[in-house]
Amino acid sequence: MVNKASRPTDSMIGRDNWNIQLDCNGKLKHFLTIEGLSTELLISILDTAESFANINAKSVKKVPLLRGKTIANLFFEASTRTRNTFELAAKRLSADVLNVNISASATSKGETLMDTLHNLQAMQCDMFVVRHNASGATHYIANRVAPGISVINAGDGSHAHPTQAMLDMFTIRRNKGDNFGQLRVAIVGDVLHSRVARSQIHALNILNTGNIRVIAPRTLTPIGIEDMGVEVFHDFDEGIRDADVIIMLRLQKERMQGALLPSEQEYYQMYGLSRERLRLAKPDAIVMHPGPINRGVEIESSVADGPQSVILDQVTNGISVRMAVMSMVLGREPETDKGEKS
Amino acid sequence: MVNKASRPTDSMIGRDNWNIQLDCNGKLKHFLTIEGLSTELLISILDTAESFANINAKSVKKVPLLRGKTIANLFFEASTRTRNTFELAAKRLSADVLNVNISASATSKGETLMDTLHNLQAMQCDMFVVRHNASGATHYIANRVAPGISVINAGDGSHAHPTQAMLDMFTIRRNKGDNFGQLRVAIVGDVLHSRVARSQIHALNILNTGNIRVIAPRTLTPIGIEDMGVEVFHDFDEGIRDADVIIMLRLQKERMQGALLPSEQEYYQMYGLSRERLRLAKPDAIVMHPGPINRGVEIESSVADGPQSVILDQVTNGISVRMAVMSMVLGREPETDKGEKS
Amino acid sequence: MVNKASRPTDSMIGRDNWNIQLDCNGKLKHFLTIEGLSTELLISILDTAESFANINAKSVKKVPLLRGKTIANLFFEASTRTRNTFELAAKRLSADVLNVNISASATSKGETLMDTLHNLQAMQCDMFVVRHNASGATHYIANRVAPGISVINAGDGSHAHPTQAMLDMFTIRRNKGDNFGQLRVAIVGDVLHSRVARSQIHALNILNTGNIRVIAPRTLTPIGIEDMGVEVFHDFDEGIRDADVIIMLRLQKERMQGALLPSEQEYYQMYGLSRERLRLAKPDAIVMHPGPINRGVEIESSVADGPQSVILDQVTNGISVRMAVMSMVLGREPETDKGEKS
Repeated sequence: MVNKASRPTDSMIGRDNWNIQLDCNGKLKHFLTIEGLSTELLISILDTAESFANINAKSVKKVPLLRGKTIANLFFEASTRTRNTFELAAKRLSADVLNVNISASATSKGETLMDTLHNLQAMQCDMFVVRHNASGATHYIANRVAPGISVINAGDGSHAHPTQAMLDMFTIRRNKGDNFGQLRVAIVGDVLHSRVARSQIHALNILNTGNIRVIAPRTLTPIGIEDMGVEVFHDFDEGIRDADVIIMLRLQKERMQGALLPSEQEYYQMYGLSRERLRLAKPDAIVMHPGPINRGVEIESSVADGPQSVILDQVTNGISVRMAVMSMVLGREPETDKGEKS
Repeated sequence: MVNKASRPTDSMIGRDNWNIQLDCNGKLKHFLTIEGLSTELLISILDTAESFANINAKSVKKVPLLRGKTIANLFFEASTRTRNTFELAAKRLSADVLNVNISASATSKGETLMDTLHNLQAMQCDMFVVRHNASGATHYIANRVAPGISVINAGDGSHAHPTQAMLDMFTIRRNKGDNFGQLRVAIVGDVLHSRVARSQIHALNILNTGNIRVIAPRTLTPIGIEDMGVEVFHDFDEGIRDADVIIMLRLQKERMQGALLPSEQEYYQMYGLSRERLRLAKPDAIVMHPGPINRGVEIESSVADGPQSVILDQVTNGISVRMAVMSMVLGREPETDKGEKS
Repeated sequence: MVNKASRPTDSMIGRDNWNIQLDCNGKLKHFLTIEGLSTELLISILDTAESFANINAKSVKKVPLLRGKTIANLFFEASTRTRNTFELAAKRLSADVLNVNISASATSKGETLMDTLHNLQAMQCDMFVVRHNASGATHYIANRVAPGISVINAGDGSHAHPTQAMLDMFTIRRNKGDNFGQLRVAIVGDVLHSRVARSQIHALNILNTGNIRVIAPRTLTPIGIEDMGVEVFHDFDEGIRDADVIIMLRLQKERMQGALLPSEQEYYQMYGLSRERLRLAKPDAIVMHPGPINRGVEIESSVADGPQSVILDQVTNGISVRMAVMSMVLGREPETDKGEKS
């Protein structure tokens, strides 16, 4: 019952159009969810990100691609890493960034969310980067903004976190090559509440990953998750065996109430990634985590900082992937100009 | 007595020079109040804003006019819309923007306001954009800053909000043409506490508006307002008749104490703009509001979102008008160089 | 005992490498403390700042020196002046600035300081500007960041504030010429708790100042301060005699607990700089203060605003000096490229 209640509320957002991510040319217009995107599109995001990775490694980390564009950061939920990487991605693309202070915003004077958004739209913003604690919030917004505005989902409730999933795919490809069919990928922890896990599973499926495993306590395993094409394990030692990629999830302590979990110590015993447990995976397995990490809760410090960890590479790659998505979304040919150029 | 007490405190600022807005060439140096400016100057602001409106509609919304200039935003009073549009205007002019966090500023360490300002001045800021809850605060500051610095009033107490008034004039001109002599303009609501209304009335007068009406409850009508050349109504149905432009004011709930007003419901009955009431105006009348709107208090939702509403256009125009004022003020020839060029 | 306890905790940071400020070419890589730097290096900072002072006096205050570099401001302790001047210095060098909101940062989700820093490092920041209330914090960080990142100390506990000291030297040189050997410089006030005083004394010594005096109550005089080559006075009237430069320190009320001090009034009587007292110094003596000033506590208003005061010049010079340090630190030839260019 708990599981059911906390699954993404499709009914809430069911009245909206879910196929709004692509424009009539099939180009990415919004980036709200991985679900329903094609293999080609995901690969083109990864390839574009690769070119930005080269720029970010240079001494002058800046290109004039989005000069004169205005990007508004709307974080209704606290975030450091994601917010900072989106801001840096925008600045390295030479866009103007407006950090909207939500708590001080007019919503505190009784203005509605949509009035706030319509005002930002009237300020001729080109893109809203939105994080919200309600699942489906970014779809809701994307369905209501003016045609010229793109919406990027920076995490909505327990629904989706598509740029996180793409930076994870980018990190896997950089370490394991582009043949996802050969890979065994294990996602470990609080899958039930994790928008990151949902988006990762969609992306891994679309990239034709050979074997996707979910390792979680029964109370934190979404009902019907097998339908997403994953193998479910409740025993970590069993699930980690021969894995090429181990993705640890953050234990969302703030999200959990009541008796879903034993103590942190017990959790670590059963679902924490220790050096010992890591030996059960492939010797060259990589360890990932979206951060911020809870040392000693879901991961041992020596693993997080160890040679198999690519956790900080994920942060670096986050900027390249966000630059890729932002430039693809805003760099499209205007739909209204179609056919005009010859 | 209430009215008298809350009128702009001319005595407070009387010792200062009120004619400091223009430099010795008659060019705009500060922008503090509409009062005393010439018709030609207001029209030149509107014409300059028109050219920026074209830039803001383009794909690359940026010009290098104020590159290398430093603009400090000093908001002693909360604001979203005004603050964001000033920030975007500055960025689209390529200026560097410093958002001074007032609450965290050294004033909390016991530093005086003027010490804070002198420090920002010593940082070679070129412009202060100031919002303050004290009437006359921006004049006070403009009289005390170094000669090289321009001060823009972003709203001071119940005194003035000149950029808001100019964006309203711009919106009226774009919709109704430049013959203000033919127009009937009604300003409705809490006129007593409204710096917006005061600045609008001055601007409408300077632009030779045919008929300016003020519609307000007796308790919210400033004593002697007729001397500003307006017609006063206490009955909305009567005052709205045949109006070309209806400017609704925000009900400043936070400003009102005691028994100035009946309940919100009663207020809406008497001074709210409903669809029904709007029919009494000209069929092509436009509806304006400085925002944020209180839906169902001073305006019906279907009117705010309806075909006659230009409320969001006002926001868009606010950026163009602020770019115009900023560029005019900072783009002047240096006074000390007079005669040197030949 | 109090004095001893509050002296910089060398033991705390003793395990770290203190000679990390210079790279293997002897160029400035971090800027953490004045201690141990050469006369030549300090002079080259002052000379570089001189060229930026010219730029800051121009109409277009911007150079493309650090275009495409990312600078993160990490202020763990409140600051207005220092933070704003660092931000403006970075922007006038065309760098991208990331203001990290520490209180909202992931550390509030239980992330450690080093995890937060490693994440910013992974975002390919080029420089951390750090203020922290723990003495030695910036050394701690500089010892642990990746080789490509520079750390600038913007004030750490009661240890050091090197950019403040250099802007003070710059102000002295601009007013008194470059022969520091002829100068008598008095530092007055709460020397015990002052990172500013410590850094100033080091800088004055390295620049071979003729006579450095410290004037402080016994309870606010660090034990063994004479070993730093200064003359100690507890009587202001005696210590100020024939001084060329008088540097007043801020009375750090918030730092002091218990009975170290008499009342503010008594403090002002004994250690406040009044006009009368100033007459005991050289007639052309300059008066300095790092700000924010406590008027009537450590300095009389008419002195702070008087003709001998250069307090606001210090603020202006702060930007030039910070631009100098930032550009020297980030403008070095990469160490790995040594010998490659021909």
